[in-house]
Order: sequence, then C-alpha cells, then structure tokens
Amino acid sequence: MVFKKVTLVGTSPDGFDAAVDDAIDRANETLDGVQWIEVDELGVEVASVADREYQAEVTVAFELQD
Amino acid sequence: MVFKKVTLVGTSPDGFDAAVDDAIDRANETLDGVQWIEVDELGVEVASVADREYQAEVTVAFELQD
Amino acid sequence: MVFKKVTLVGTSPDGFDAAVDDAIDRANETLDGVQWIEVDELGVEVASVADREYQAEVTVAFELQD
Amino acid sequence: MVFKKVTLVGTSPDGFDAAVDDAIDRANETLDGVQWIEVDELGVEVASVADREYQAEVTVAFELQD
Amino acid sequence: MVFKKVTLVGTSPDGFDAAVDDAIDRANETLDGVQWIEVDELGVEVASVADREYQAEVTVAFELQD
Amino acid sequence: MVFKKVTLVGTSPDGFDAAVDDAIDRANETLDGVQWIEVDELGVEVASVADREYQAEVTVAFELQD
Amino acid sequence: MVFKKVTLVGTSPDGFDAAVDDAIDRANETLDGVQWIEVDELGVEVASVADREYQAEVTVAFELQD
Amino acid sequence: MVFKKVTLVGTSPDGFDAAVDDAIDRANETLDGVQWIEVDELGVEVASVADREYQAEVTVAFELQD
Amino acid sequence: MVFKKVTLVGTSPDGFDAAVDDAIDRANETLDGVQWIEVDELGVEVASVADREYQAEVTVAFELQD
Amino acid sequence: MVFKKVTLVGTSPDGFDAAVDDAIDRANETLDGVQWIEVDELGVEVASVADREYQAEVTVAFELQD
Amino acid sequence: MVFKKVTLVGTSPDGFDAAVDDAIDRANETLDGVQWIEVDELGVEVASVADREYQAEVTVAFELQD
Amino acid sequence: MVFKKVTLVGTSPDGFDAAVDDAIDRANETLDGVQWIEVDELGVEVASVADREYQAEVTVAFELQD
Repeated sequence: MVFKKVTLVGTSPDGFDAAVDDAIDRANETLDGVQWIEVDELGVEVASVADREYQAEVTVAFELQD
Repeated sequence: MVFKKVTLVGTSPDGFDAAVDDAIDRANETLDGVQWIEVDELGVEVASVADREYQAEVTVAFELQD
Repeated sequence: MVFKKVTLVGTSPDGFDAAVDDAIDRANETLDGVQWIEVDELGVEVASVADREYQAEVTVAFELQD
Repeated sequence: MVFKKVTLVGTSPDGFDAAVDDAIDRANETLDGVQWIEVDELGVEVASVADREYQAEVTVAFELQD
Repeated sequence: MVFKKVTLVGTSPDGFDAAVDDAIDRANETLDGVQWIEVDELGVEVASVADREYQAEVTVAFELQD
Repeated sequence: MVFKKVTLVGTSPDGFDAAVDDAIDRANETLDGVQWIEVDELGVEVASVADREYQAEVTVAFELQD
Repeated sequence: MVFKKVTLVGTSPDGFDAAVDDAIDRANETLDGVQWIEVDELGVEVASVADREYQAEVTVAFELQD
Repeated sequence: MVFKKVTLVGTSPDGFDAAVDDAIDRANETLDGVQWIEVDELGVEVASVADREYQAEVTVAFELQD
Repeated sequence: MVFKKVTLVGTSPDGFDAAVDDAIDRANETLDGVQWIEVDELGVEVASVADREYQAEVTVAFELQD
Repeated sequence: MVFKKVTLVGTSPDGFDAAVDDAIDRANETLDGVQWIEVDELGVEVASVADREYQAEVTVAFELQD
Repeated sequence: MVFKKVTLVGTSPDGFDAAVDDAIDRANETLDGVQWIEVDELGVEVASVADREYQAEVTVAFELQD
Repeated sequence: MVFKKVTLVGTSPDGFDAAVDDAIDRANETLDGVQWIEVDELGVEVASVADREYQAEVTVAFELQD
C-alpha cells in the first residue's frame, strides 16, 4: 500500500473552513481514495479581489491503486 | 509558579473552531488552572469517517498547584 | 515597488476567522495599500478573560508609497 | 535538465527500511529516471491494522524527459 | 473524541526499528487506545554504554476515554 | 530502558537561569530519575506582573521505572 | 478557484537566476496558468559535472482549470 | 546600543541581486544606521506582471538613535 | 483589541539577561502598553568590540491604542 | 569540558542502521572521546549506483582534550 | 574573505552565560580571528553530574587566513 | 564511503553567485573530493564596508579519503 501526497490551495470568500473544503472538494472530483488532508498555511488575499479571499494550502493524501 | 503543557487533538464534524473547543472542553474537565492554548496543527480525516472530521492539535498550558 | 510587512495579533470571542478579520480591519484603518496577509499562529486565551478569546497572529504586507 | 519531486508514503509490516523500499519500488514502476529520495517522516500505524505498520514519507526526485 | 499525545524515548542495542518498538511496547503496557506514533528524532549513545545504544524519540497518540 | 519527556514553564523575577532552575526544582519534586532538560523557549511577561517575570519553557527527560 | 503546487529543480551553469528561470521555463511549457513560484533551496553540484552546476528547487503554483 | 529589525520585499525584473538591492535602497532612503540585511525568502511573480518579477523578502537591521 | 509585534536586538557586556533587559527598557521608553516579549536568538559579538558583547534578539508585543 | 560537533554522511547498501554505523565507525577511527550522535537526515541514492545506497547524515559529538 | 563556522558545546556549573563563555574561551585558544558566535541550543545535564551542568551549543565564526 | 560537511561563508561585492563561488573556490583549495554544496543563508553587510558585501553561508560536502 502506497499513498501519494499533492498540494492544493483552496479559496473562499467565507472563511478558512470553506477554503479547506474547497480544496477537498476539488481533490475528491479528480482523485480516488482520498484519506486525509493536512493544513500547511492559511492566508488572505486583499488587494486583487473585490472583498477578502481566504486561502488554505493543504496537502492531500490518497491511496495509489495497483 | 510553574506551568505544565500537554498536547491534545480535538475533533469535530463542524469545523476547526469546534475542534479546538472540543480539546479545550476536555482540558477543562480534567485540569485545573488552564491558562491558554496554542494551535499546533490542523487537518481533516476523510477516509475512515462518514463525513469530514476536522482535527486540531493544541498545546494546553495550565498552572501546577503547589 | 517595495512592500513592507508588519505583525499584528487580532482577537475575537467568536473564532479564528473573526480574529484574523480583526487584525485586517485594524491594518486597513492605518495602512494604505494592504496586499495580503499570512497567518503565523493561532491560539486561545482562557485564564484572563471572561470567556475564550481567539487570537490570530498575522503578517500584513502593504505597498510602500514613493 | 529539470528534475521533478513527488511525495509518496510507503508502508511495510517489516520495518522502516522496507517501508522506504516500498515507496521506491512504486516510484520505479511508474516514473523514468528516478535519481534519489529523501526521507521526510517516519511513523507507525497501530490502531487500524492487525499488527504494526511502519510508514515512511519520502520525496522522490526524477529527471524530466524533454 | 479527543486524543492525547505523549513523548517517549525507546532504546535498543539492535537498531532503530527495535528502539521504536521498545517505546511502542511501553506505551501499550500503560495506555489504552494507542492509535499511531510519529518518530521525532533518532540518535545513538556511544560513550556511557558498553556498545552502541540506538535511541528513538517518538510521539504516541492515544484516544482519551470518556 | 524507556525515557518520557514532559514540558514545563518555570518562572522567576531574577533571570533566565533561575527560571530554568525553577522548572527543574519542580520536576525533581514530583518525578524520579530526571536525566536532562532542553530549553525550548525564553520569554518575559511584562504587563500582568509587578516587575518583569522571566519565563523558560523546558522539556524534562526522566527514566520510566519498570 | 483552486491552485495546485508542484516542485521542480532547475539547473544552469550560469548561476541561480538562470537555474530558477530554467524551472519556470519548463513549467510554462507543460502547465497552463502558472501564477508564482517560491524558491525552496539553492545548491551547486560540483563532482559529477564538468564545471559547476547551479541548482534551484522551486515550488510552482498554477491555477487548476474547471 | 539597540538595533531594530524591519521586513521589506524588494522587486526587480532583473533578478534576485537586484531585488535585494531594491529593498536595501529603500531602507537607506528612510532609515539611518542600516547595519546588515538577511534574506528571508526568494520568489517570482508570473501571472500578474508583463514579464517575470523577481522578489526578495529581507530583514533590515538598523541602529536606533538615543 | 489588537496587538502589534516589533523586533529589537538588545546588547550588553554583562550577559544575556542584561541584553534582554536592554531591549525591554528601550521598548518601554517608546511604546505604551508593552505586554510580553519572546527571545528569538542569542549571540555574542567578539571581533569588533573591546570585550564580548552579548546580544539578544527579542520580539516585543504591545497593545495598539484605539 | 567542551564538546565539538562534526557532520558526517555514512553510506551502505544494507539499510539505514548500517549507514549510521558506517559514519560512527569512521568517527571512532579518527576522533577520541566520541560521546553520542544525532541523525540529521536519511536518504537513498538511486541513479548513480549499481543498486540502492542508503545514506545517513549524522552529527557526531566528541569531547575536546585539554 | 571567507569565514568558517564550527560547533562547540560549552559547559559550566554556574549558568548559561558561563557555559557560552566556556565555549568562546576554548575557541579563542585554538582559533585565530574569532568574529561572533550564535547560540544554537541550551540544556542542563542532571543525572550524570554531581550538581546541575549548564550546557550551551554555540556556532563559532572565524575568518580563514589566506 | 563517508562524506564530511563543513560550513563556510563566502563574500563578494558583486552579488550572491560570486559569494557562493568564493566559498567553493576556497573549499577546492584546501579540500580534496568536493562533491556538492548547499546554500544555508544569504545576507548583505552594509555598515562596516565601503559598499555592500554580499555573503553566502554554504555547507560543503566532500568525500573522506581512507
């Protein structure tokens, strides 16, 4: 059994929980066997967006198929 | 005056604030003199639970009684 | 173009999103050209406040005027 | 010449050397030009497996083909 | 569900796998519900022992009972 | 032979050496077989005390009895 | 909007700027929507090359298409 | 004698040396007694600029006047 | 309530406690509402001074006035 | 009593324990008073060797003679 | 001008300042051109000594002669 | 096969590439079998030199002869 990890940055105008969920949703659409995620960094983009954009960089671990 | 620190991992289906509160609630039940907590790591368990389980590893500082 | 970074700690009784917003609000009041913020540390003060006080240390990047 | 790095977690009931080898074996099956690996983290899963499962998170560097 | 983490240093004359097992064995004797362990540091004591003593500092996570 | 590590914060109005000694004194009162300590962090509390309070967070390693 | 991050190591006999550019050039050939890169590590290979080979490990962030 | 440290991000289309110089130039315009700088992070902005913009986050140490 | 953090380096020929005090003294002269300080780094300058100069880099947290 | 620390990288085709032993053996040949070693990094060279070469970077502490 | 850095651990029964001085004294006996030192770690040995032994790991920078 | 690592700080008025080269040149003069170098830190000395002096702290790995 081997797992692979990839790094995604989710974004949301609603807060950090939603930004993390955004990244997990995307991972679930394109990867089978997502196991867990780790939050690496949190931040907020202010200048280039209409309002505040919450951002969450997460590492997604999923099981590789044989 | 001496403080001691212990490490707990709180969990919640509702988000990171609730996962941190879960750990603080548990600390308050069993420890006197809780002073402050520090968030060490945030993560989400996906594979082994019905829905997403938000997890927060926290360090709890409390004052030791003489 | 040169940016400067300063470190603020926002606080809120309502959770971490609100604590981060508290710091960004303060930055926007006194600084022009806020670009983005990075979350450095999250914690909760328990002993010296009526209820729990969520705290977020953030680094604020803003563009220096010529 | 450009290298790419990916992160895998190998597992084995036999120990950490075997867990690292498990990840390298998998990398060699699917990637050409594996150069070297770095061990990022070691751990042991206890609760969800029959016996102990040694785990090794490794970063695999391989040369990208033109 | 709340987990607690404690830090142990296992030792063995036979190598790092055995030093990690030594710490897990001890944890299993005195704690219920051990879930997983993380390896924090590896080292070897040379001067104060007859031969080499392999040492492994590990963090043990276990589930707290209600 | 297995060691355990716990984290204490010693305090003193006299300086950092005394704050570290404060934590070691406390460890010696309640733990057998203290081996060594590592200094993790140094700080000074200013606002909530009459004068300055030097603080030293230390990790205490002690040998577990069979 | 979700970003993904991948890790590349660019190389050049001409210096660190050129090694970073080498990695960005490669990223632009194979990825749409490259946003920014972060420099993780710099090094120089000496023994296995005719002259010095400057190396730059970079993390490339790009926007995932829907 | 007391020094203060501030954090700036210099930028340049020409490379990292020029980005660091950009930050030092700005520091020298507005601060007396600049002593030394430390490079904290290097990166390149790609998406929002015409060409590549090299960025260098630096910490500037300067001597405070009495 | 928002706190701000600034970084100072205190110096003294007498040792590290005095170097930290030097930085706190300076902070108290120019800032209202100093709360606590964290010690970031300790060092000793040898070559450019008559005797040894102990240096302490500290982060000072103070409460911002409305 | 003063200790000095040096950094070695041991290698072995047989695994990480043997790679660490390789470095300790070398230290014992050329240094008196080796006290303990700390493992800094583990890795595996794949491309430039016949089979896999396990590598262990260790810090060796030894007592300086008067 | 090239500097070299070496790592020493000074010890003293009198405290951390004296432990650091112990390492600098030793460096000055055997090295020309000592410039500055950085404190890497502080600790206290308890079990194997009559009283407490304060230890300071320091990095010593000195100028290499042509 | 055992490698040793030493830490040097190269300097140059011309930029960071030249500062790194300065350290490698020095290593090649006095050490056989230099394999690779890692860049640990970059900085610029401003106050004690006529113009800016770029500094690069590097770790040099070389193969020990039998």
